[in-house]
Amino acid sequence: MSVEVVKYLSVGLVMLSTIGAAYAVGKIGAAGLDGMARNPEASGSLLTAMILAIAFAEALAIYALVVAFLILFA
Amino acid sequence: MSVEVVKYLSVGLVMLSTIGAAYAVGKIGAAGLDGMARNPEASGSLLTAMILAIAFAEALAIYALVVAFLILFA
Amino acid sequence: MSVEVVKYLSVGLVMLSTIGAAYAVGKIGAAGLDGMARNPEASGSLLTAMILAIAFAEALAIYALVVAFLILFA
Repeated sequence: MSVEVVKYLSVGLVMLSTIGAAYAVGKIGAAGLDGMARNPEASGSLLTAMILAIAFAEALAIYALVVAFLILFA
Repeated sequence: MSVEVVKYLSVGLVMLSTIGAAYAVGKIGAAGLDGMARNPEASGSLLTAMILAIAFAEALAIYALVVAFLILFA
Repeated sequence: MSVEVVKYLSVGLVMLSTIGAAYAVGKIGAAGLDGMARNPEASGSLLTAMILAIAFAEALAIYALVVAFLILFA
């Protein structure tokens, strides 16, 4: 395998790791909506906390994206 | 396989380990939101504890990121 | 495969082991937040116990990190 070939394989593996981030976003989003439905008075603080938690999960996907860009272009 | 080739494969494997961190973030975020909906008076201390626990999980992803950068650039 | 080549593959495998640590952090964090929501008076002692338990799980990831560094640089 040449270097050029393995770079693309590696980007594939790296981006597979965003499966985890997607799981987290799904889990957090579902829990947030579930909570809002059960307790609508807490909607505001739940929405804030949900967006905060999703941002942490999203960051994990952005790490993978940064590494993929570095492999492709650095 | 040359060293240059295996470096990229290894980065792919290392970044796959962030799937675990994402699972943790999802689980913790969901539990936090669930608790806030069930007991809104505890929202403040729950949010603090949630962010603390998510930070520990995020640290695991940053370990992987550090190792990936070391493999790519050191 | 030469020694240099297998070193990098091995680092990739070693870092994959942090998935287990992340699972533990997620499970412990979720249980801690769940407990705080159900019984807010116990928040303080639950937070202490949660951080202690997460630290043990985090140690497992640090073992992997130490081994990865030793493989790469020793």
